[in-house]
Amino acid sequence: MRKFTAFGLLSSGIGAIYLSVAVADGATDNVSPIYGVSLPDGYRGWQMITVAHEAGQNNDIRGILGNDIALKAFREGTRPFPDGAVIARLAYVYKSSPENDAVFPAPQSFVAGNSTNVQISVKDSKKYADSGGWGYGQFENGVANQSEPLLKSCFACHTKLDRSKDFVFSHYSP
Amino acid sequence: MRKFTAFGLLSSGIGAIYLSVAVADGATDNVSPIYGVSLPDGYRGWQMITVAHEAGQNNDIRGILGNDIALKAFREGTRPFPDGAVIARLAYVYKSSPENDAVFPAPQSFVAGNSTNVQISVKDSKKYADSGGWGYGQFENGVANQSEPLLKSCFACHTKLDRSKDFVFSHYSP
Repeated sequence: MRKFTAFGLLSSGIGAIYLSVAVADGATDNVSPIYGVSLPDGYRGWQMITVAHEAGQNNDIRGILGNDIALKAFREGTRPFPDGAVIARLAYVYKSSPENDAVFPAPQSFVAGNSTNVQISVKDSKKYADSGGWGYGQFENGVANQSEPLLKSCFACHTKLDRSKDFVFSHYSP
Repeated sequence: MRKFTAFGLLSSGIGAIYLSVAVADGATDNVSPIYGVSLPDGYRGWQMITVAHEAGQNNDIRGILGNDIALKAFREGTRPFPDGAVIARLAYVYKSSPENDAVFPAPQSFVAGNSTNVQISVKDSKKYADSGGWGYGQFENGVANQSEPLLKSCFACHTKLDRSKDFVFSHYSP
């Protein structure tokens, strides 16, 4: 089921039956194409790694969270990241805040609007050996985006980084 | 000791002795003036409430964290916040990232540089009844800023918000 796509669902009666059974069982097929990455339970409660503003086409503001394995590696500077490290990038619409600016001397407050998407990076050096040891997923409103071109763009971009970063953009902010 | 300032330390031999004893005991006088707020143990591991970019004079990017009482109130929309809620605002230099921009199609990546300061807001409706139930502290490199005018400016600004916000700027980002 890992590479099962929305297109596949429409074109395959067998696939559709399989999916409905999986949902009835409480199991989930809400995973990314190519990598089979799911949204980790409790990720919203993970510790913060850092924050960033991505201008350009995304124009979002983001919090980058990580599980305990990732946080330990960030804090200790361990590279490459150990297997089991998971990074969650939560992006929100970047917007000015008139309600805050009314209090300040000038328009200067930019805050997080609605969630745009959550991207998950999972380190598993064996399972994801073909993509630098990282598997990727993107979720909108908790639903895994099924675009294979989108998911392929993750590693295509991360692989441009210097190898000392182990394919990770973020630095830890103390 | 709560209102003990750097100026007091220089001008009072008794104060200096008292301070050295407190440090030797492992106790701390690293608290804000006016409110006596200290840097909470483990605050860096708290859950994220939201993120923001403050342009203007501060020009920082910030993550807003909270303890469990604060997070519960944010998620459930409880106002006023219950006593015991603590909010930690971690601000960092707002800077462009040439190393990220080298990977992207255009200069668009803004990240967190060095820490500028950490502000702590503590809800205690009795202790801080004169300031809307909130006590404030600001810390640079873990050291409580001892400027009384600075600390007075906290409530002077937060009190301009609509009362429905209970003197808090941040909204929770899911």
